[in-house]
Amino acid sequence: MTQSKRFFSDNTASVCPQILEAICAANRDLAVAYGDDPWTQRLDEVLGELFGTEVRAFAVATGTAANSLALATLTPPYGAIYCHPEAHIAVDECGAPGFFCGGAQLERIEGEDGKLTAAALAAMLNEHPVSVHTVQPAAVSISQATELGTAYRAAEVAAIGEISHAHGLALHMDGARFANAVTYLGCHPGDVTWRAGVDVLYFGATKSGALAAEAVVFFNRRLVRDFELRRKRAGHLLSKSRFVSAQLLAYVESGVWRRNAERANALARSLGEAAGTRLLHPVEANEVFVKLGVAGKASLRDAGFEFYDWGSPAAGVARLVVSWDQDERHVEALRTALTAL
Amino acid sequence: MTQSKRFFSDNTASVCPQILEAICAANRDLAVAYGDDPWTQRLDEVLGELFGTEVRAFAVATGTAANSLALATLTPPYGAIYCHPEAHIAVDECGAPGFFCGGAQLERIEGEDGKLTAAALAAMLNEHPVSVHTVQPAAVSISQATELGTAYRAAEVAAIGEISHAHGLALHMDGARFANAVTYLGCHPGDVTWRAGVDVLYFGATKSGALAAEAVVFFNRRLVRDFELRRKRAGHLLSKSRFVSAQLLAYVESGVWRRNAERANALARSLGEAAGTRLLHPVEANEVFVKLGVAGKASLRDAGFEFYDWGSPAAGVARLVVSWDQDERHVEALRTALTAL
Amino acid sequence: MTQSKRFFSDNTASVCPQILEAICAANRDLAVAYGDDPWTQRLDEVLGELFGTEVRAFAVATGTAANSLALATLTPPYGAIYCHPEAHIAVDECGAPGFFCGGAQLERIEGEDGKLTAAALAAMLNEHPVSVHTVQPAAVSISQATELGTAYRAAEVAAIGEISHAHGLALHMDGARFANAVTYLGCHPGDVTWRAGVDVLYFGATKSGALAAEAVVFFNRRLVRDFELRRKRAGHLLSKSRFVSAQLLAYVESGVWRRNAERANALARSLGEAAGTRLLHPVEANEVFVKLGVAGKASLRDAGFEFYDWGSPAAGVARLVVSWDQDERHVEALRTALTAL
Amino acid sequence: MTQSKRFFSDNTASVCPQILEAICAANRDLAVAYGDDPWTQRLDEVLGELFGTEVRAFAVATGTAANSLALATLTPPYGAIYCHPEAHIAVDECGAPGFFCGGAQLERIEGEDGKLTAAALAAMLNEHPVSVHTVQPAAVSISQATELGTAYRAAEVAAIGEISHAHGLALHMDGARFANAVTYLGCHPGDVTWRAGVDVLYFGATKSGALAAEAVVFFNRRLVRDFELRRKRAGHLLSKSRFVSAQLLAYVESGVWRRNAERANALARSLGEAAGTRLLHPVEANEVFVKLGVAGKASLRDAGFEFYDWGSPAAGVARLVVSWDQDERHVEALRTALTAL
Repeated sequence: MTQSKRFFSDNTASVCPQILEAICAANRDLAVAYGDDPWTQRLDEVLGELFGTEVRAFAVATGTAANSLALATLTPPYGAIYCHPEAHIAVDECGAPGFFCGGAQLERIEGEDGKLTAAALAAMLNEHPVSVHTVQPAAVSISQATELGTAYRAAEVAAIGEISHAHGLALHMDGARFANAVTYLGCHPGDVTWRAGVDVLYFGATKSGALAAEAVVFFNRRLVRDFELRRKRAGHLLSKSRFVSAQLLAYVESGVWRRNAERANALARSLGEAAGTRLLHPVEANEVFVKLGVAGKASLRDAGFEFYDWGSPAAGVARLVVSWDQDERHVEALRTALTAL
Repeated sequence: MTQSKRFFSDNTASVCPQILEAICAANRDLAVAYGDDPWTQRLDEVLGELFGTEVRAFAVATGTAANSLALATLTPPYGAIYCHPEAHIAVDECGAPGFFCGGAQLERIEGEDGKLTAAALAAMLNEHPVSVHTVQPAAVSISQATELGTAYRAAEVAAIGEISHAHGLALHMDGARFANAVTYLGCHPGDVTWRAGVDVLYFGATKSGALAAEAVVFFNRRLVRDFELRRKRAGHLLSKSRFVSAQLLAYVESGVWRRNAERANALARSLGEAAGTRLLHPVEANEVFVKLGVAGKASLRDAGFEFYDWGSPAAGVARLVVSWDQDERHVEALRTALTAL
Repeated sequence: MTQSKRFFSDNTASVCPQILEAICAANRDLAVAYGDDPWTQRLDEVLGELFGTEVRAFAVATGTAANSLALATLTPPYGAIYCHPEAHIAVDECGAPGFFCGGAQLERIEGEDGKLTAAALAAMLNEHPVSVHTVQPAAVSISQATELGTAYRAAEVAAIGEISHAHGLALHMDGARFANAVTYLGCHPGDVTWRAGVDVLYFGATKSGALAAEAVVFFNRRLVRDFELRRKRAGHLLSKSRFVSAQLLAYVESGVWRRNAERANALARSLGEAAGTRLLHPVEANEVFVKLGVAGKASLRDAGFEFYDWGSPAAGVARLVVSWDQDERHVEALRTALTAL
Repeated sequence: MTQSKRFFSDNTASVCPQILEAICAANRDLAVAYGDDPWTQRLDEVLGELFGTEVRAFAVATGTAANSLALATLTPPYGAIYCHPEAHIAVDECGAPGFFCGGAQLERIEGEDGKLTAAALAAMLNEHPVSVHTVQPAAVSISQATELGTAYRAAEVAAIGEISHAHGLALHMDGARFANAVTYLGCHPGDVTWRAGVDVLYFGATKSGALAAEAVVFFNRRLVRDFELRRKRAGHLLSKSRFVSAQLLAYVESGVWRRNAERANALARSLGEAAGTRLLHPVEANEVFVKLGVAGKASLRDAGFEFYDWGSPAAGVARLVVSWDQDERHVEALRTALTAL
């Protein structure tokens, strides 16, 4: 078999040099490294500048922790969280939201291309009157970019934010691939977050070049509440926090947060073009969903391309993920193979 | 306004004489009442006879406790429970399953007339491959009668049981109105439960004449596991258990479990006929769902009929529930009013 | 063996006539019984009159539910609850507080005769500085009467209340045998509760004559918070609530709450006198703890007396509980037997 | 003020060169780094060799996660965990055990120098008979080294293991400072773990030179059960796991696990000698507890030494922690200062 060409997931990518260097630098000056932690203390300022507003930001090591800790500050144990059926919190976190919230219920709302719409959210809320017998609506969670590789426009987020707040719900954004979405949209990071009503964002770095670093960014600082206690109790307060904070600072300040995403998006877009009519969703981030059929999948795998099935294998759908450090020759080879199908 | 005629819920009905007498009797013979509790000790035998197989049966005071304690013995904290979107556990128990299971996730599966189908269940399970990232399929929960007043046929339950067990899932039945369903079907209680693959049943009595008594009936006794510890920890082991057990024994042994259901069903059926084309679902238990429109609802309420809206008030749908002790003149009056619309 | 004479527990006592009659009465007038529930609506007023202040009162069916639901409104998942090592919540509820609170931690504080002291509480709080790494002090729970059959004096409760509030903790009282304590103290129910700083009380009725009825009484109504949602989610909102509320109303309004306790206390006191130097704790309620030795226990049991060991059987300690309806001849016989030892 | 000399905690130490290099190396060979993860796959083998037996080992990023995930596999929600009152799980993890176990209860057992004894454990278990009303004994947790800087001898652990297993309890060891204890004892790592009945060990690396890496080591592999699902659900399965696993491999294979501990222990021992009669516990690891009095603490702080109070500030007790990379001149200065007191 030819040398393997991996399109599994951006989770298997390497750490980009700027971030690895920041980790090493944080270890150098021991006098500073001891005791207080200036890296962590700069998170609010640096992320505030990125978003153009005052924020409270907290570092954790995984996306599941970032999403669930944020949701747990917004949602009581008897609360309801509204999300798309494909949401990562609903299908890829082994029930973490229910664990961190102490039993909150996920209410799924269908939508095209992985997007929840304001209209569908409003309908769901109106059709289910609240009483002591029901779960209590607490939060709405949307993914930017979505799990199907699409990006919410600022107006779409704003409409969801308006409905959410009108019903007293907080709006959470799962931004594991936030950089890919914002880069695609070409907008200011604030346009699709706080300016559009997002109360708290999981701002992802690991998938796009960090070793293990994610930020929970509260735009609505009143909602921080007991976040720090919940983080500690869940074992997500790292003793040597400076090494996580340093990754986030480097990710933002070096500009790799944007450059890495631009590169991955561009390569993914080129794959989407090659997929032609087999493409299932617009390519607006670094994921490409292609209807290959069972035979098509097999032939690509025989050619050394590795990727995950989307849904059941029989469905014949492949998810192709392009990482920030993807080998261009592999992408070129995959373009050729897709065109040849 | 004319004297009120209530069709809110069978939860507001009275306690039937045979059951109230059983409570008083349990209080009489003190020598026996002290210490050990012969009423509770007879539950397995009496319910086993009713169902025609050996069972382990436990008494609790509410349906939410019965459903959630049963599900918690079947479902780990990271488990998934499959149910219909209208399931009582999903919409009317304030998140109790998540609480008792320690965070389990409800996966909804649409279906006509409040019924989950074997085909839809199979599709859902096949389309969602299981991994360490996903919730782990653990249980299927169906309601008999359903929340829309329909009854699963034995073959329908058996098909669901087959798929469930083929995927290693346990099958739970919410039988808050089990008596109404079995009476309508005219089958043996075992036909739609253990013979059809049901592992554990919440056998309801309160809605049909008890004061506060429900039974959790394990047909698959291997699944009892730590049920008794969970019941105690949840505050559902009553210190004077004999008074709950005595209600269940009287409910079954006096035959009121069937007679009360027959009466309620017959009156409900007559309302369904009067509703004509406005009827939304077949009347197979003691609930009638009627499309009245906003004006129709108002005119009935002006005439002194009381009932709940189903879904949002704007939908114009009324849920009419007939209790075991409903006043026939009120039913007759409602028939006339429905026909007149 | 001679006819058995039971001193196991007041949980096995019968339902007193006034309360059973109230249940039957609540079932009689159907027109009223339907829909709204005037019994439940009178709880606040009737219990408010008993305590001489405005209260919010809620009915549940078990003491474990009453204690845990109260504590869960006071204690976050990362909170600490301070109690005596013998507290019912710590040793007899199968971990219910941890379940209802979502993981709260019990901190035990030793004390004579089952009593927690203000001084020991203050010391514990001062020696354990609070930080993000520690559980967060949230509530103090004391039992009135205690698990060792003693009663807190008003001044003792007030001192605990003062320390609790000074540290921002709420004060909870487990009053499963509240009537026995107040009757012994000869004080007004308000003197050892709200006037002494108790924020919420579990006011017990089942052990002293009810079928299954307990009240959670909030003197500090601001702390009610989400109690009703937690009660529903835990399956403790009874559909036919009127039958539980009616028991509580009869318990208070008929005066049996006091008369039943007076009778049980008097009989227990007479046993304590008979126990002489074998008595381990003052008899201030309806429980008597006697050091019998292994042989002494055996001889009493041979004589047909039934009771539980306290702690390990080898310790030779018996707990004798006198119920409101205890047969005086049995008590007389036990007095004789104890004296004879 | 003179330049600060920090004795706060080994959590603020730097990452040792061998481990930082291993992280960088893991990032180099991209072809290998993609997809499967050979570092993680070697954990069982490398830790098995260290302990001289077959193990199942899992990497996580924090000690709280390591302890709580291990305990959650051993303890049902209604279970009891026995530990010393000073145990890290009881006082420094914000209630994490209750969170991860879904409500388990911690039962404290006093003991000299931070050690739980087999005799005290046996007494506790014998004095509390188990029933459906009690929490169910599930696990025993001991810290090696203890929170007071002492080390359990192999025989002490073995005696605890014997009692634990005789009562059907699993034995967990919190080894945040395991290297320090084993180095002090001069024994084989297996002698104080699996050979002494330890079922699962949290093997710490972060405090002794890692960036963020801890291992959960199951000697009793039957107890692994659903560990991997619980780890994922808690957000502790790192997407780029290789970087955590690589730290653990380097920690063990380079031998720094032992060398770093030896250095820290030696420096701590020298401080203990200087403390003389003020020393509160034998120095058997890298922590020194000294009774300085309020004035003594103040004078040391004026001299630029930084450390935490132990217990309430008024107690006048200082905890001095020596890190693997502590500046010897600071230790020498502190020795002089302690002697001068």
